[in-house]
Amino acid sequence: MHEFRVWAPRVEKISVRIGNEVFAMKPLNDRGWWSAQVEEAGPGTDYAFILNNDPNSYPDPRAMWMPNGVHGPSRVYGTGAFAWTDQSWNAPPLASAIIYELHIGTFTTEGTFDGAIKQLPHLAALGITHIEIMPVAEFPGDFGWGYDGVALFAVREAYGGPDGLKRFVDACHAHGLAVLLDVVYNHFGPVGNYTGMFGPYMTSNHRTPWGDAVNLEFEQSDEVRRFFCDNALMWMEEYHIDGLRLDAVHEYVDRSAIHFMEQLTTEVEDLAARLGRSLVLIAESDLNDPRVVWQREAHGYGLHAQWNDDFHHALFTMLDAQGEGKGYYGDFGSMERLAKALTQVFVYDGIYSQYRKRIHGRPVDALSMHHFVGFIQNHDQVGNRATGDRLEHFVGLDRAKVALGLVLTSPFIPLLFQGEEFAASSPFQYFAHHEEEEMARSVSEGRKREFSAFGWLPEEVADPETRETFERSKLNWNEMHEEKHAAMLDWCRRLIELRKSSGALTDGNPRHVKVRFDEEKRWLVMDREKTRVALNLGDSPVDLDGYQGYRLLLGSENDIRLVGESVHMPAARLAVFTLED
Amino acid sequence: MHEFRVWAPRVEKISVRIGNEVFAMKPLNDRGWWSAQVEEAGPGTDYAFILNNDPNSYPDPRAMWMPNGVHGPSRVYGTGAFAWTDQSWNAPPLASAIIYELHIGTFTTEGTFDGAIKQLPHLAALGITHIEIMPVAEFPGDFGWGYDGVALFAVREAYGGPDGLKRFVDACHAHGLAVLLDVVYNHFGPVGNYTGMFGPYMTSNHRTPWGDAVNLEFEQSDEVRRFFCDNALMWMEEYHIDGLRLDAVHEYVDRSAIHFMEQLTTEVEDLAARLGRSLVLIAESDLNDPRVVWQREAHGYGLHAQWNDDFHHALFTMLDAQGEGKGYYGDFGSMERLAKALTQVFVYDGIYSQYRKRIHGRPVDALSMHHFVGFIQNHDQVGNRATGDRLEHFVGLDRAKVALGLVLTSPFIPLLFQGEEFAASSPFQYFAHHEEEEMARSVSEGRKREFSAFGWLPEEVADPETRETFERSKLNWNEMHEEKHAAMLDWCRRLIELRKSSGALTDGNPRHVKVRFDEEKRWLVMDREKTRVALNLGDSPVDLDGYQGYRLLLGSENDIRLVGESVHMPAARLAVFTLED
Repeated sequence: MHEFRVWAPRVEKISVRIGNEVFAMKPLNDRGWWSAQVEEAGPGTDYAFILNNDPNSYPDPRAMWMPNGVHGPSRVYGTGAFAWTDQSWNAPPLASAIIYELHIGTFTTEGTFDGAIKQLPHLAALGITHIEIMPVAEFPGDFGWGYDGVALFAVREAYGGPDGLKRFVDACHAHGLAVLLDVVYNHFGPVGNYTGMFGPYMTSNHRTPWGDAVNLEFEQSDEVRRFFCDNALMWMEEYHIDGLRLDAVHEYVDRSAIHFMEQLTTEVEDLAARLGRSLVLIAESDLNDPRVVWQREAHGYGLHAQWNDDFHHALFTMLDAQGEGKGYYGDFGSMERLAKALTQVFVYDGIYSQYRKRIHGRPVDALSMHHFVGFIQNHDQVGNRATGDRLEHFVGLDRAKVALGLVLTSPFIPLLFQGEEFAASSPFQYFAHHEEEEMARSVSEGRKREFSAFGWLPEEVADPETRETFERSKLNWNEMHEEKHAAMLDWCRRLIELRKSSGALTDGNPRHVKVRFDEEKRWLVMDREKTRVALNLGDSPVDLDGYQGYRLLLGSENDIRLVGESVHMPAARLAVFTLED
Repeated sequence: MHEFRVWAPRVEKISVRIGNEVFAMKPLNDRGWWSAQVEEAGPGTDYAFILNNDPNSYPDPRAMWMPNGVHGPSRVYGTGAFAWTDQSWNAPPLASAIIYELHIGTFTTEGTFDGAIKQLPHLAALGITHIEIMPVAEFPGDFGWGYDGVALFAVREAYGGPDGLKRFVDACHAHGLAVLLDVVYNHFGPVGNYTGMFGPYMTSNHRTPWGDAVNLEFEQSDEVRRFFCDNALMWMEEYHIDGLRLDAVHEYVDRSAIHFMEQLTTEVEDLAARLGRSLVLIAESDLNDPRVVWQREAHGYGLHAQWNDDFHHALFTMLDAQGEGKGYYGDFGSMERLAKALTQVFVYDGIYSQYRKRIHGRPVDALSMHHFVGFIQNHDQVGNRATGDRLEHFVGLDRAKVALGLVLTSPFIPLLFQGEEFAASSPFQYFAHHEEEEMARSVSEGRKREFSAFGWLPEEVADPETRETFERSKLNWNEMHEEKHAAMLDWCRRLIELRKSSGALTDGNPRHVKVRFDEEKRWLVMDREKTRVALNLGDSPVDLDGYQGYRLLLGSENDIRLVGESVHMPAARLAVFTLED
């Protein structure tokens, strides 16, 4: 016996179809829920819904298993049956995290959860604490980044389906690795989204880059919010996920007295209390608004952390001279901005942005910097380039090492992107497969058009629709032990080791971060109590004074020399020192 | 000499036309401001702007004087020239306020500021402390409520223009009356709004009941926010207005890190500091969100107060049995809801609303109740009825007295609507004159259609476009001394007198308000420390116990009897008691 339940306030009548049999559903309450108990159904049964007199049948918006693709039918998934081995697991605090972002489809040749499991010893040995996986909700097409998911409760079959994700999470926990999952609650993908036939999931009163906004504040929005909150809770309870990364929270439009984010953090906290496990929520936010991470008691939304794009942009524009002035990078491009990011988190904290053509942001003031995630590479920053080339490909190993060095000694929670640790040679390109020819052509052409504005020829831009783009983006794990890659990996490992053992580097107090720099020579010195990070991003060597009593802990190359009171830093170097007592 | 300045980022070139002469303007900065100094212009000069090669000319969006109507030309107004006599004026605290809302066009037969001045002695004698005037920004047509203003910096000429408003404010201050002004920052009226030709004042990314939303968060929104903030500051500085009532703040859509309301309260506070005068901001808010009045230090928007519609609805549905169940009143209609409003401000504080089809609001908790304005009549609650009939017209004098009694003894800041104090016989109808036939017909028909849903015949609904509707809505001051009206006026005066002299009634602490009630018999008792308010809204007399030691202070009729431990309350009565020491 299985009870089917569905929220469908937009239909007059609804049935569940199983094979050639049709079972009428009954209203469960006056808010649009329907139910049907079917004797012969159970885990493994394929089903779909028939709405009104529509001859077609449609997948369950909350289906947990979509082995037949996004157009359905759905399959009943037997929850609670997995043999977990992580009973004693609890995630380490986010403040101590080294996050590693990966995409299941390209992390390994197999492109599956089981494939990814094989690389966990490498990540654990590297010192990673949290793995962040890009979205795994079912989406149409043969490959994609995952941000166009439509069956948000179903784990992508091609990755290994629901049980595959459980095996992966269980294995991560066995290796001492926490798992964060990227979830998209600001839109549904354009293909295979049938939710609108069931209920008012979207509203045309607000427009987003993807079209209509999610209905978080109008009639029947309670159930829409329930849909997303229940989705969040499901990953944490049924799949043992330790936290979520919320995609682009700036595209939520919600004037409710209890903002959707506040509701979510409240419910997740309650779940953590019930499960006795640490659960965290991290936002991707373009708002530069500390309200996202202010505690709820301080009338914030209470997320644990948010990404800090300003730090990325400030550092990136100091690494990549050619990139200066393009798009949003035009708002950055000085050591002063980088210093501001390192000490004040948001460069745009209430000042005018030329790119946005308006004042942007608000100061974070005395908030712990552990509320902010810092990175120089992530899926967007690599993949949204015309050819998906990684930082090292165009700035060289020396500068890539400096960048990684600053990320891992920064006061932020560091995040690495798959392959960054060994300066992978493979690109990470934008791929998004669409079966419909019209759609596929439009995506390909749109991408080429977008980059032609920056001077790219159509043939230079990676075509998102071809399988080669996807395959090309897979990591080549065999190269990891070649000289260049091994050097980067060693640098990465030593940096992580240092960070983990350092009280100064894991201190989140913004008042304990002091930065000096020279705009012309492009050196920067960051003091974190007795630990000093010095970097030279200029094209010439520099000699810096004031190093009496300092000892060199770590250098990105062996040619950094500490002589008496001064240190000699060749171009494109980073070093970490400590002041001896 | 006069310098013309205008923000017009949407034009390639712009000139100012004075008579037959045209003066080219020069860019003032790179954010869309233009300027022209014209030797022969000065206060009194009529002018308009020529945009690009458009043969027409357009009024100044920030014009302070529009004596030729909304389509222009504008006239230069000589600021700072008025001979103020209110040098020693400062407004009393809002917590002590008795607010009186009035509409200049219908408050007196003249329908002008000067006409209104003649009634100030009456209001002062009544005990009113704050006069709130409905919008006076210039709008098209011969009469209207004022919410379709388009020249937001210009005082309506028909009311007396800029100098007329100054004479009025100065006279109010001379009578010891503070002045609040109703301002509309959520939309422009549909006729005569030329701002869109100058700059992106609106955005199509958000929709409101009036169409596109005001652009508070997208490109160039800084200057749009400046426009509204400067407008607010102008009223307070140039016109000596003591505070503003912000129309429908729930229609602002703003995800900026500094919300528009927070920016406004910050700037108004700074102005108050500079001028050495108390300035307040009051919101009309349908959000039921205490964030509106939380202090900025507590991460709220920091408004001083907001209207509390829930109290109105809860009380109204207990007065008007026929009204129950219609529209938003369906969410109210019990003594329990009224008791909740009196003790917890928001009835909808996180509970499900059948009318809204979603959960609504958030608890106010321990906030002072002086952050909330309470009323049983206002321009909307009277005027948005099909015939604009006032409460007393359909519930009778006895119940109108009970309602007024509860408003004036409630913990909220009480607000009265013009004529309420003497149970005026004139209605206050919806009137909105449009010169364009098409527009006028559409407004008339829309109004009739709207009310036909509630069973009204088209001929029963007051036609907003006819002058009779406007004239009919004017107060008849001659009736004030007739018996019924004089009785109400006396009741009102005594209640205000009692409130002003009572420590218990001016105590804003929600913990000091205790309410008991009987749902069936419809009596309610509100204890505010040693002061007790008892009311009987049932159709039969009730005898209430527990009055040992109490003394009757005030009764809505003389037939309320206190005998020993109990009090006899006929139907439709309110009385105030005090516990003797």
